[in-house]
Amino acid sequence: MRMYDIIMKKRNGEELTTEEINFFVSGYTKGEIPDYQVSALMMAIYFQKMNKRETADLTKAMVDSGETIDLSLIEGIKVDKHSTGGVGDTTTLILGPIVAAAGAPVAKMSGRGLGHTGGTIDKLESFDGFSVEMPVEKFIKNVNEKKIAIGGQTANLAPADKKLYALRDVTATVDNMSLIASSIMSKKIASGADAIVLDVKTGSGAFMKDEDSSFELAKEMVDIGTHVGRNTIGVVTDMDQPLGFAIGNALEVKEAIDTLNGEGPEDLTELCLTLGSHMLVLGKKAKNAEEAREILKEIIRSGEGISKLRELVEAQGGNPEFVDNPSLFTNPSIVEEIVSPIEGYVKEIKADDIGLAALVLGAGRETKESEIDLSVGVVLHKKIGDFVKKGESIATIYANNEDKKKSSEEIILKAYGIVDEKIKPKQLIKGIVTKDGIKKF
Amino acid sequence: MRMYDIIMKKRNGEELTTEEINFFVSGYTKGEIPDYQVSALMMAIYFQKMNKRETADLTKAMVDSGETIDLSLIEGIKVDKHSTGGVGDTTTLILGPIVAAAGAPVAKMSGRGLGHTGGTIDKLESFDGFSVEMPVEKFIKNVNEKKIAIGGQTANLAPADKKLYALRDVTATVDNMSLIASSIMSKKIASGADAIVLDVKTGSGAFMKDEDSSFELAKEMVDIGTHVGRNTIGVVTDMDQPLGFAIGNALEVKEAIDTLNGEGPEDLTELCLTLGSHMLVLGKKAKNAEEAREILKEIIRSGEGISKLRELVEAQGGNPEFVDNPSLFTNPSIVEEIVSPIEGYVKEIKADDIGLAALVLGAGRETKESEIDLSVGVVLHKKIGDFVKKGESIATIYANNEDKKKSSEEIILKAYGIVDEKIKPKQLIKGIVTKDGIKKF
Repeated sequence: MRMYDIIMKKRNGEELTTEEINFFVSGYTKGEIPDYQVSALMMAIYFQKMNKRETADLTKAMVDSGETIDLSLIEGIKVDKHSTGGVGDTTTLILGPIVAAAGAPVAKMSGRGLGHTGGTIDKLESFDGFSVEMPVEKFIKNVNEKKIAIGGQTANLAPADKKLYALRDVTATVDNMSLIASSIMSKKIASGADAIVLDVKTGSGAFMKDEDSSFELAKEMVDIGTHVGRNTIGVVTDMDQPLGFAIGNALEVKEAIDTLNGEGPEDLTELCLTLGSHMLVLGKKAKNAEEAREILKEIIRSGEGISKLRELVEAQGGNPEFVDNPSLFTNPSIVEEIVSPIEGYVKEIKADDIGLAALVLGAGRETKESEIDLSVGVVLHKKIGDFVKKGESIATIYANNEDKKKSSEEIILKAYGIVDEKIKPKQLIKGIVTKDGIKKF
Repeated sequence: MRMYDIIMKKRNGEELTTEEINFFVSGYTKGEIPDYQVSALMMAIYFQKMNKRETADLTKAMVDSGETIDLSLIEGIKVDKHSTGGVGDTTTLILGPIVAAAGAPVAKMSGRGLGHTGGTIDKLESFDGFSVEMPVEKFIKNVNEKKIAIGGQTANLAPADKKLYALRDVTATVDNMSLIASSIMSKKIASGADAIVLDVKTGSGAFMKDEDSSFELAKEMVDIGTHVGRNTIGVVTDMDQPLGFAIGNALEVKEAIDTLNGEGPEDLTELCLTLGSHMLVLGKKAKNAEEAREILKEIIRSGEGISKLRELVEAQGGNPEFVDNPSLFTNPSIVEEIVSPIEGYVKEIKADDIGLAALVLGAGRETKESEIDLSVGVVLHKKIGDFVKKGESIATIYANNEDKKKSSEEIILKAYGIVDEKIKPKQLIKGIVTKDGIKKF
């Protein structure tokens, strides 16, 4: 088998066989096939596409390129949730506890990553002493006993994906549904999940800006999951404005605590109930989404959700008092309101820019080496559709540096679009994608 | 300027600016832009194409990537001829002398190359003592005094093209008209030609198998020439069967001598008259192609053509007696006839296979290091349309090794297709392409 023939075949619009896909993924991972042949193939795939079978095979080949995590010692169906990424997305901190409280095992491997704010691990480290470092045996024991544990990603998962993504990133070959979908799914599958709920964000703050592409990506990923025997459901959700109010690490943790106490933002609560109910259905802890939703609402109402968070924090060395007294979280030196210069209805809040405003304050990493300031960030007070008076606060900035605060403030003011005419609030849940098809709401 | 943006732009079907093309060609030549970005761009160009302006700019950028040969000290208009390559193509050995005899300067830089037989230099080295090694001053003096000199390609011409072609060759991005045309033209332009006659071969033994693509390639190259101010004419000619009868180095030289003596194969003679007459017109030694053809016919008839070859051989250290007594050329140990197993009309002679039959005998180079046997090869006796009796010789094999002879014989027998029904001879000249358009015959 020759890489040249594989490139030529795809260039001519033909379907690649399983063997051909395995050959190039394994050869590339081992360094036997050079970058320049793989980038040519990626560009050929960009133009000629891959079908469902090829996409599933690529995913499997990337899974097989490295280690896979064996969660078989954990009892029950391990349902993982993955978000394609947005601004102010605190769902994991809420979903973990409520799903675990409902009896489904939550064995979460999280990363730190680059972005507007830190990852789930960074956020959890706002709890004094919290750590994700533990032996595999303890991780498994925790999940079996408490139904929840959060670990760091230490295994060498899907190295072919890492190498391929880095190459695509510099050769303008990222934008292809099959390649995007297989990249995400390979990591999830290698992480050992039995079933997967995907939160596919759509809108200005998302990787996928338009709704049709978002549904297409969701379908592509659900089909991969189905192909490799993992029950997968995709929920397409709005990211035209930040989710919830808080953007920042400790700020988002506090918002998660509020939500677990039944006092969170409406959109964040709704998203957690939607994603959580699908997780319970896939985890066979409820017959259908409606029943699951009632279970989860009761878990929040009864306080079982917030108890589960307390239990998780304590089990991993964190100070559980923070859960009951959020004022214990590190506080920044500057807290300032941003007031609206005009009166009207909020028409848009550019999510990307609000993320940037948090990044500028120091809430996220620009490079792998960046230090994160867990205390800083932004809390919005007005969302799309809200009426705002002149001089009324639209957001609060939490900062530790006057200059950064000023830059952030400017960005936030520009991110808000306020108009005279009444604006309808955004629809949060755009639709559901299952192996049987797409259902738009 | 970033290579990433250039790839993205072309991927999206946009036109690249002159600056962008210069940036990537010069960056790639210097090793500042990596192979993997250039191969992705080549694949994007494969799908999105380049327009005339981009193609001409790419050609110029490749010319500028290395040395160019300055022929300005040579008097008159230097017209170069280039063939896209076929089997049994001996035209240079005939065209050089007759065009020079007509007073147009022939300053030919030739290569050795890989192929079924050697290149023009190898063939000329069949003359005992012939050498292309000489100082530039002597090369120029020879052309000014004798109107002809054949030199080896020593300068670093269009290194960007060498590097790009090597990359395209392993990434399935060779087949694009703009890239093929600019590759050929960059070397011709860097060689210092004032005007160019292109012999674009078409058919089973050519790089371009179908006629439409051949005309398209010819037009692409003529347009580049026009764009960069070099008068260029393309002649599309048949390569569905070998040209002339001889395939092999000394064998082709003997055939060239026959042709210069007015006794050459009909197709080879006709092709030389056609290409030569366009060279004379471009070189302003004739008012039109008809007048030029009469001049060239008279040069052959009068013996001026064969005299010019003798003069060339002597001037470059070769033994001119070979011209008058071709039996002096090294003779192989085995000379054997291949007889037809059936009676009928020749319907096809797979040119590629006949080339292979010569290569198998040792007439060409498979790798740069291969030694060439100048004496071996094949001489055909029947061409398409000819009638052949059972037991009649269709070709003679000249070999130095019994095993190789056997392999070659098998290939030749399979290459011939003989049928019952009468077959029309092939049309040799398919059409002419000038800057004004395409004229098919």
